[in-house]
Amino acid sequence: MKLGCCYYPEHWPEDIWAEDAKRMVEMGLSQVRIGEFAWSRLEPTAGQYEWEWLDRAIKTLGDAGLEIILGTPTATPPKWLVDSMPDMVAVDEQGRPRKFGSRRHYCFSHQGYREQCARIVEAMAQRYGENPAIVAWQTDNEYGCHDTIVSYSEAAKMGFRRWLSDKYDHVDALNSAWGNVFWSMEYRSFDEVEPPNLTVTEPNPAHVLDYRRFASDEVVTFNKLQVDILRARSPGRDMIHNYMGFFTEFDHHDVGRDLDVASWDSYPLGFLEQFWFSDEEKLRYTRQGHPDIAAFHHDLYRGCCAGGRWSVMEQQPGPVNWARYNPAPLDGMVRLWTLEAMAHGAELVSYFRWRQAPFAQEQMHAGLLRPDSAVAPGGHEAALAAADIEKLGQIGETAKSVALLFSYEAAWLFEAQPQGQSFRYLELVFEMYSALRQLGLNVDIVAPDVALDDYKMVVVPSLPILSPSLVERIAKLDVPVLFGPRTGSKTADFAIPADLAPGPLQQLIPLKVARVESLRPGMTEKGSDYEVTRWIETVETGLSADEMVDDGRGIIFSSGPVGYLASWPPAPLIKRVFAAMAKEAEIATLDLPRDLRVRQLGHVHFAFNYGTGDCDITDHLQGGELILGEALIKPAGVAAWTVA
Amino acid sequence: MKLGCCYYPEHWPEDIWAEDAKRMVEMGLSQVRIGEFAWSRLEPTAGQYEWEWLDRAIKTLGDAGLEIILGTPTATPPKWLVDSMPDMVAVDEQGRPRKFGSRRHYCFSHQGYREQCARIVEAMAQRYGENPAIVAWQTDNEYGCHDTIVSYSEAAKMGFRRWLSDKYDHVDALNSAWGNVFWSMEYRSFDEVEPPNLTVTEPNPAHVLDYRRFASDEVVTFNKLQVDILRARSPGRDMIHNYMGFFTEFDHHDVGRDLDVASWDSYPLGFLEQFWFSDEEKLRYTRQGHPDIAAFHHDLYRGCCAGGRWSVMEQQPGPVNWARYNPAPLDGMVRLWTLEAMAHGAELVSYFRWRQAPFAQEQMHAGLLRPDSAVAPGGHEAALAAADIEKLGQIGETAKSVALLFSYEAAWLFEAQPQGQSFRYLELVFEMYSALRQLGLNVDIVAPDVALDDYKMVVVPSLPILSPSLVERIAKLDVPVLFGPRTGSKTADFAIPADLAPGPLQQLIPLKVARVESLRPGMTEKGSDYEVTRWIETVETGLSADEMVDDGRGIIFSSGPVGYLASWPPAPLIKRVFAAMAKEAEIATLDLPRDLRVRQLGHVHFAFNYGTGDCDITDHLQGGELILGEALIKPAGVAAWTVA
Amino acid sequence: MKLGCCYYPEHWPEDIWAEDAKRMVEMGLSQVRIGEFAWSRLEPTAGQYEWEWLDRAIKTLGDAGLEIILGTPTATPPKWLVDSMPDMVAVDEQGRPRKFGSRRHYCFSHQGYREQCARIVEAMAQRYGENPAIVAWQTDNEYGCHDTIVSYSEAAKMGFRRWLSDKYDHVDALNSAWGNVFWSMEYRSFDEVEPPNLTVTEPNPAHVLDYRRFASDEVVTFNKLQVDILRARSPGRDMIHNYMGFFTEFDHHDVGRDLDVASWDSYPLGFLEQFWFSDEEKLRYTRQGHPDIAAFHHDLYRGCCAGGRWSVMEQQPGPVNWARYNPAPLDGMVRLWTLEAMAHGAELVSYFRWRQAPFAQEQMHAGLLRPDSAVAPGGHEAALAAADIEKLGQIGETAKSVALLFSYEAAWLFEAQPQGQSFRYLELVFEMYSALRQLGLNVDIVAPDVALDDYKMVVVPSLPILSPSLVERIAKLDVPVLFGPRTGSKTADFAIPADLAPGPLQQLIPLKVARVESLRPGMTEKGSDYEVTRWIETVETGLSADEMVDDGRGIIFSSGPVGYLASWPPAPLIKRVFAAMAKEAEIATLDLPRDLRVRQLGHVHFAFNYGTGDCDITDHLQGGELILGEALIKPAGVAAWTVA
Repeated sequence: MKLGCCYYPEHWPEDIWAEDAKRMVEMGLSQVRIGEFAWSRLEPTAGQYEWEWLDRAIKTLGDAGLEIILGTPTATPPKWLVDSMPDMVAVDEQGRPRKFGSRRHYCFSHQGYREQCARIVEAMAQRYGENPAIVAWQTDNEYGCHDTIVSYSEAAKMGFRRWLSDKYDHVDALNSAWGNVFWSMEYRSFDEVEPPNLTVTEPNPAHVLDYRRFASDEVVTFNKLQVDILRARSPGRDMIHNYMGFFTEFDHHDVGRDLDVASWDSYPLGFLEQFWFSDEEKLRYTRQGHPDIAAFHHDLYRGCCAGGRWSVMEQQPGPVNWARYNPAPLDGMVRLWTLEAMAHGAELVSYFRWRQAPFAQEQMHAGLLRPDSAVAPGGHEAALAAADIEKLGQIGETAKSVALLFSYEAAWLFEAQPQGQSFRYLELVFEMYSALRQLGLNVDIVAPDVALDDYKMVVVPSLPILSPSLVERIAKLDVPVLFGPRTGSKTADFAIPADLAPGPLQQLIPLKVARVESLRPGMTEKGSDYEVTRWIETVETGLSADEMVDDGRGIIFSSGPVGYLASWPPAPLIKRVFAAMAKEAEIATLDLPRDLRVRQLGHVHFAFNYGTGDCDITDHLQGGELILGEALIKPAGVAAWTVA
Repeated sequence: MKLGCCYYPEHWPEDIWAEDAKRMVEMGLSQVRIGEFAWSRLEPTAGQYEWEWLDRAIKTLGDAGLEIILGTPTATPPKWLVDSMPDMVAVDEQGRPRKFGSRRHYCFSHQGYREQCARIVEAMAQRYGENPAIVAWQTDNEYGCHDTIVSYSEAAKMGFRRWLSDKYDHVDALNSAWGNVFWSMEYRSFDEVEPPNLTVTEPNPAHVLDYRRFASDEVVTFNKLQVDILRARSPGRDMIHNYMGFFTEFDHHDVGRDLDVASWDSYPLGFLEQFWFSDEEKLRYTRQGHPDIAAFHHDLYRGCCAGGRWSVMEQQPGPVNWARYNPAPLDGMVRLWTLEAMAHGAELVSYFRWRQAPFAQEQMHAGLLRPDSAVAPGGHEAALAAADIEKLGQIGETAKSVALLFSYEAAWLFEAQPQGQSFRYLELVFEMYSALRQLGLNVDIVAPDVALDDYKMVVVPSLPILSPSLVERIAKLDVPVLFGPRTGSKTADFAIPADLAPGPLQQLIPLKVARVESLRPGMTEKGSDYEVTRWIETVETGLSADEMVDDGRGIIFSSGPVGYLASWPPAPLIKRVFAAMAKEAEIATLDLPRDLRVRQLGHVHFAFNYGTGDCDITDHLQGGELILGEALIKPAGVAAWTVA
Repeated sequence: MKLGCCYYPEHWPEDIWAEDAKRMVEMGLSQVRIGEFAWSRLEPTAGQYEWEWLDRAIKTLGDAGLEIILGTPTATPPKWLVDSMPDMVAVDEQGRPRKFGSRRHYCFSHQGYREQCARIVEAMAQRYGENPAIVAWQTDNEYGCHDTIVSYSEAAKMGFRRWLSDKYDHVDALNSAWGNVFWSMEYRSFDEVEPPNLTVTEPNPAHVLDYRRFASDEVVTFNKLQVDILRARSPGRDMIHNYMGFFTEFDHHDVGRDLDVASWDSYPLGFLEQFWFSDEEKLRYTRQGHPDIAAFHHDLYRGCCAGGRWSVMEQQPGPVNWARYNPAPLDGMVRLWTLEAMAHGAELVSYFRWRQAPFAQEQMHAGLLRPDSAVAPGGHEAALAAADIEKLGQIGETAKSVALLFSYEAAWLFEAQPQGQSFRYLELVFEMYSALRQLGLNVDIVAPDVALDDYKMVVVPSLPILSPSLVERIAKLDVPVLFGPRTGSKTADFAIPADLAPGPLQQLIPLKVARVESLRPGMTEKGSDYEVTRWIETVETGLSADEMVDDGRGIIFSSGPVGYLASWPPAPLIKRVFAAMAKEAEIATLDLPRDLRVRQLGHVHFAFNYGTGDCDITDHLQGGELILGEALIKPAGVAAWTVA
């Protein structure tokens, strides 16, 4: 695995570039990402390019032996460009144009802006496409950051109408698919359809889902426009985009089809603070991040490009600036996060950023260096990690074990119709993922259309729209498969299947969901050693339940290798179910303490201590040989061993 | 009492209509409401009517023996109509037009839309007015749902100016009534007045109150426009509107004056979840609804039409889709709710809806049938209720007992000027109502202008604007009357009376409110076995207090039969006060357990168990004869008995 | 000290003016403020002045012996004026024009409105400037009330561009100062710059800070425009503005430079309810206000005019109308607040208002009289206070003791970049002030540019932008000085200093802040008898720490008389530090009980009991002679004594 960093030559005096490059190499870094916010420097005014500074920056970095990932600057169109076509900005759900003054101030559907993007990308590709220092391109930056996928602009409205026309051909098909007869919402032509915002009460969820699909498709074509230009002009270079954490607003699998490497930006402390974790978890892991946050994304993004290639484009190196609270990582965590990425198979961990900027929005975001160029704690740990990586050497592939199916469309669907405020798809998936990880299992998070043949066990947290082809593929497997609540509960048009949920899944397991309930916090259905919260279904079936709550309702059913969970997963129960499935699949499981996580890569076992106390892994070594760390792992410590 | 359901022939293939109708009759239903959202099917494009499908639907239903309530479709104007006059939509308080895509996207003040409504209603009335299957009309649907009464559109602004001109004649009168001198808010003409939104800080409350009165009056004339057309073309049919729960944005008494039957839409679980109830109550009654929610509205809407005729147009039959959390009712609750409506004197309980829709916004809202046409739990309970109703037969009228005065204007006034965040009028009324119900009393919730002569006891939770005529009417009574806090605290112009609160009430009880305080949560004034929260007044009077808090302030005073409560009602105290009043009035009271409610209709006593445990009512039977259920009432159970 | 009240002759029938004036004098009042909201009565329509009523009001009040403070009515432009130039209103951060219908509906940057203000002020000054009854003028009313300082209007945008051009001369200087290269935010001319609202994510904090500075400067010139006119036409009269409580949106020191007297509007109960105090404090002091609220502002506003002249223009006399909850003050508090203002050196305490208005927005706001003209509790206490003041007589000046530096710019800076949700500058200052007060110290809250030579001890809670001149001035002092966290952490351009924080302070104390952390609630760093919350810094220094938390990080350092606190101040620790500094400075301290506060004015010591129990101050009398009250102070009681 390589290490790298994000660097902004345009932020620093040119006379320190060479020294910076030299220090990067000394720290053990071999790649550097540059250029992704530099449009106003590359083209200070319309059509007047200034390449010379970037020529020199690339030469300086390349001469130092660094491989360069060059970003396209389309996330930050300059003011002159925005002023030349003011309607290029996105419009928010409240109908307000989103103004210039930060970044991502564009609408994916604006054709004029797409032309401008094609022009600047073409110009960069012409100049640097064959530059030997350039090894990869990053398109744009963090698609969707700051809630920028769904726009309600005029451009988006016109794009949506075209998209609908392509999909439905005739407006009657749309009216029928959406059930527009319901409240006289029928249209006479596609030109009558509007974005589903600012309606009096909730819009038709089918309308919303199609809008989300359209918005996601717009990202795909926006990205592909750049990729196509770059591939033509810059042969042999990797095409990369840097995805974000806990973000589902567009289909990353779809975008990933046009990339060579899926990368992501890993900020475990910020994500812990900003997302749904409990106060107890936020305090317990305040300097470490929840032990499954980074791993979840590693395992997710590995599934986003055809070849399984992935990397961390931005790794948190210290306190950040953007969370509600921004503590410093525990000493050792930056190294731990780095090695954990390695254990999950990353090609690169690139720290964000080389040196902390003393100005503008992110001046309180740590770098590997402090603003005064002294090495910051994160820089010291990066150097340690570099040494560890060298020591560990190249490690082979891992055999497939557990597949966890993840669907971006499912996330949109449940947002359009949660039916209970606490039914959140990403959280459901994360809880199941975490239960698997607590059993020490290697997990691949995969798209619903991926080949499952080599997996020993399959978990589908929920897949409301269940394609016949997936049912067919599952039918051919002979491994344990668990489907979670609301699977098969909708048709592709966002309707209840004629034979009710779980729809086509009934071909694999004979049951029908007769009724569903969402439960308010505090309301539970008691089981043996667990309580069902949030969601429970009433199932009609001839099967006898594997597990029942006290009122007699079954919540786990199975038919051969296929299981169905008819509730939000209670933690103790789901862990037990997964352990049983693993046993059935002949995969070994562990009973890990709360703060410990393990992963196997090739022949190497890794263990990571997310706790603030020591953790003894002697029992887990199984006679293996330690090649990194010790059996008593210190807080934020890492151990690695091989088993003969 | 009849049973019925809401049906949407346009949602289903025509070939199942006859079977549906037959099954309705078999289930014990005799009425069916149709048509209220069907505009786009009745007139798919401007002026092109398509009646045939509705002709056939009416015939099919009528032929099965069902009586039809036909709705006017004005809650869902089609897109072509909105596009023909885009300014017909309401504008929200933030100044945003409320877009097409759900329902109720119209402004009551838009004259063009009123003309369109008159046109479609006239057309329907012409075609179906004398159809023998049609027994009633429902105007529009749930006026005000989704916050749609108060609009800040151009049409509303112009309408408000006309309304003000009619009321005040000269702008000087308006300036004086509102006290516009206060912050140089004086106008030179009515044409300078604007809706009271988006002001820098709070607008003049007198301005707000007049805007609320205007907005309510707009609903009245909007409704009357339809009623007048229908009465002319459809003689002998009942005019009905379906009101909502816990909704005070327009004066239902005023609208009711033009109706024959006041109906309402009863969703006890959704209302429990969405309104002010405590977490403890929301958990305790999560599958039942608070025991006073349905009864409160039954007793309220019975007072909304001159003849006291009322019904439940939509009865929750299972989980709904629109609350934050949507649990299923406890087994038996649908039957309980149905019989409780009967006990309160309903003419009809109509379930919403016949069959759960598999598409669009409400696809997760249960029906009597499931989407696959199997009978849902609610359908089974409806059939049970039908049998019970037949068994109970026709029951006579009830003698008047307790009157509780309710004023929509009071709700607007306290919203415009709560003076303490926790002073909420509807909650005050509900708490007093609940205290009366816990004593086993029959209550009529009545408008302030209603004749009170036949009542044995009168409760006025609060009536800030106290008309001289009401004072006169009360003066003539010789029964116990209690007035709650802030009664008489305002003039009709929203000013403090010259002789201070309680204004004209001082003619009945010699006291003056010298000072008022709102108390933050946790702040209390202690009394004997209770604590005053939220609100307390300092009273100046020669009377000695009936009840004092520890700092010596009196909070209950009486002068002959007239009492005054100078605080938010503490639960134990108000129950004691009401019991004493009842004793004085020679009305028997009971001391009911928390989950039990009773009601007397004619000679029949009913008891309803809202708890999840059994409830023994042997003590309450008083030697009566059980005609339904048993003395040990199961959870969600009902008992009825007659006393010789 | 004088007493006065706010009076609105235009609200009352002319025939009661004389009686009102007579009663004011009898109550012990000698000043009266009038006129500040009367524009629509002075000029009912454009250019048509009506002075006669005001002539008579001034004569009536003056004849009764009252001195008049005349307000300019510019906070309430009439509707005809707004209609004549609709773009004069401010635009809020969401882009919505703020409508007519309450007050303060103007944008400080609108040149047309400034001309109108100059015209009406000139007209008033011409007519009343030399009227002997007029002793002072109040400009406008509560600048900034209802969030009205920062406007995003077209006028503000144009004003901001001019302001930037004046400051930076060339746009390259702006780009460089703000670090606009960061996200391609560079401008080619000042005409491209926009207000920093509605950006996709946070705007550049340097952009925000300059916008706040601009907005503050607009208030300064708006105020000066009026003052210049009034000074020319009304020689010898005091120029006053009435500031608010806990309000930092413009630089009060800058505005104060053009005034003779800084006054403020004191509503201790409303401020307690509306600001950051804990629930425990809000309940404990619900009828008293937190014991440091009033004193904090007295000591702050004494530092806002060159001569140290200040007064209370509006004193809460009973329950108000505008807080979430509005309880009544404890009996005695109105008197206590009055005498406490005296103890802090006020020239005037003027009650708001004479008689409670029965109409419009503030009808629930108590006055000295009730709406029915009976004396309200506040009126009785004002009379008692008047007697006390007469008894105490004229008291001399106080020697300087502790200086607490306060910077409005610091407040804007930390709002633009809190870096942790709980880092709130005003709260930081208040907590330090409160700790000083609990030690019985006299505190002056002063601007950063004030001469510090006569102080015995200096506290700088935080000063992120530390001017070289202040460092020089501190270097010359030989008294204990403590600097709080984040001092010197930014350059004047909102960047991190090249030598890191505390920037130039490193000249006085050799340390560097290597890293900072914000801590979520519940996250603490433990020390000996305290816990650090909210904020902690990691300091690099050769100094040994005076105080360390358990992880070994120093949080207090000192170098000679200069100290640095590297964390949010833990209450027990900061009190200990201040006590030690005071000892070093040879200032006596006390250990006061929680509810007691003292202040020394000249030779008189005052004590104020903010508790609801008695408080014995015998120990604090030090053999002094009581001249007011007794040693056992009742709740809301006051004692005063002199020490020989």
